[in-house]
Amino acid sequence: MSDYSWVTLATNDTYSLGALVLARSLRRVSTNHNLTVMVTPGVSAAMRAQLASVFNVLEEVNILDSKDEKNLALLTRPELGITFTKLHCWRLTQFSKCVFLDADVMVLKNCDELFDREELSAAPDVGWPDCFNSGVFVYRPSIETYNALINFALSQGSFDGGDQGLLNQFFSDWATKDISRHLPFIYNMCSSATYSYLPAFKQFGQNVKIVHFIGTAKPWLQYLDSESRHVKPSPGSEHLQGFLQLWWDIFCNDVHSTLSSEMAGLAGAL
Amino acid sequence: MSDYSWVTLATNDTYSLGALVLARSLRRVSTNHNLTVMVTPGVSAAMRAQLASVFNVLEEVNILDSKDEKNLALLTRPELGITFTKLHCWRLTQFSKCVFLDADVMVLKNCDELFDREELSAAPDVGWPDCFNSGVFVYRPSIETYNALINFALSQGSFDGGDQGLLNQFFSDWATKDISRHLPFIYNMCSSATYSYLPAFKQFGQNVKIVHFIGTAKPWLQYLDSESRHVKPSPGSEHLQGFLQLWWDIFCNDVHSTLSSEMAGLAGAL
Ligand SMILES: O=c1ccn([C@@H]2O[C@H](COP(=O)(O)OP(=O)(O)O)[C@@H](O)[C@H]2O)c(=O)[nH]1
Ligand SMILES: O=c1ccn([C@@H]2O[C@H](COP(=O)(O)OP(=O)(O)O)[C@@H](O)[C@H]2O)c(=O)[nH]1
Ligand SMILES: [Mn+2]
Ligand SMILES: [Mn+2]
Repeated sequence: MSDYSWVTLATNDTYSLGALVLARSLRRVSTNHNLTVMVTPGVSAAMRAQLASVFNVLEEVNILDSKDEKNLALLTRPELGITFTKLHCWRLTQFSKCVFLDADVMVLKNCDELFDREELSAAPDVGWPDCFNSGVFVYRPSIETYNALINFALSQGSFDGGDQGLLNQFFSDWATKDISRHLPFIYNMCSSATYSYLPAFKQFGQNVKIVHFIGTAKPWLQYLDSESRHVKPSPGSEHLQGFLQLWWDIFCNDVHSTLSSEMAGLAGAL
Repeated sequence: MSDYSWVTLATNDTYSLGALVLARSLRRVSTNHNLTVMVTPGVSAAMRAQLASVFNVLEEVNILDSKDEKNLALLTRPELGITFTKLHCWRLTQFSKCVFLDADVMVLKNCDELFDREELSAAPDVGWPDCFNSGVFVYRPSIETYNALINFALSQGSFDGGDQGLLNQFFSDWATKDISRHLPFIYNMCSSATYSYLPAFKQFGQNVKIVHFIGTAKPWLQYLDSESRHVKPSPGSEHLQGFLQLWWDIFCNDVHSTLSSEMAGLAGAL
């Protein structure tokens, strides 16, 4: 088996639905690598069972483990909570290389070539494009790096209060040093790009390999007509119709049937 | 004298006001290089005189010169008009290297180091960041390149109908080939970035060297209180207050006094 893994994170049952669709989207394109999901205590036992049926590895992570003095220090910085949780991905040292994917991304085409890249490879952010977007990144698990990141976070904080600001400050030469660490935007096509520069989306959109539903237009918050199984995007997200429909098609075909009715109810009108 | 030049373009008197402020902003930061403005017949004689008083070189360019068969072919593609006008910058072969600047940019700090870069260097666009923004770019004047660009435009068109789409298709390895051709975003900070990722603007904003008023929030379209000389940004542009005020300060102090009342009236309430 490969010693590479895709890695995602879910801190609750709702984001777990995203993780389930993400995993199915990776299976659909026949990835050769492992799927790992990190969960916190906020994910229910029933949902963990679902996750375990499609992910190869399920890792429980706990940001407030009082046995760890670094995490004790964190108690004074509650805003760094989710940030620190994502950093746990560096502790997955059973793998030699990983690609982290937010739970709100969906893979459209096989992207196994991403594992040829080195740490830290990521695509530009659409807000301030000398920062990378931390929804998709290639990295090497390492306890040393993990500790350095935690210490950096505790001493410097994060300029945006999240993992993206922290990782950009830590890997601060990303914008200027090595073009091979710039993933093409098609590996992390932020959904807002489809309207902010529509001609580019029309020109390059068919090449997109990974779509990222940044911001509030999360697929599981959209309305699905349960008869027709057509998604009705909320106002302002109409341009994402095609991608949202694919997310829901995967959800309905590959995920929904195995969920209990209670879990299914977390998503849209189902 | 330097054989390098800053180059801008104005096709009418309104954009000429932008060019005048741009030129003054370059003088304020004591650039060592020439200032060139390309004008089309739409720029009045009085305005040309103003431009000539601050630019070293004023070049008349005419996109519809019927003696040129390539331009005849263009008559069937009217949407490429402004695009082709910008391409004329490659014909300024009296200079060995140039930096093109849109007339809606303002230079905040000396940027003469840009001339150390090679063609084609530019900063990422905020809409689709694997495209560069064509409001600021380093290039080498060359008739050969000019002809290649015209032929390319006539055969391929431009995916966005403008110069940015065309230049990105022509210099299509920008995103992937050479990191030194990626200008840091601080050399073309698109004004929309100040709200789309505010924490990054707070973190990096003090380093900005060139601000670019993309889209409809052109400085000369904002309302200036003529008593207090304070700009009142139109709704949606409030976050640009500081940059807009600087533009107007330069306009009022360095440009306005030399304009006829008719020309001054093109800008805001003056
Ligand atoms: O309450 C939360 C918020 C975030 N996340 C994880 O952290 C990632 C980043 O958050 P999000 O995608 O919502 O941020 P955005 O991409 O919209 O900036 C998510 O995809 C999840 O993997 C989570 O598990 N629970
Ligand atoms: O009517 C026009 C439109 C554009 N331009 C020139 O072309 C540049 C690009 O247009 P603009 O800056 O309006 O486009 P944006 O940056 O908003 O996409 C301008 O800055 C000017 O130099 C011009 O001279 N006249
Ligand atoms: Mn995300
Ligand atoms: Mn412009």
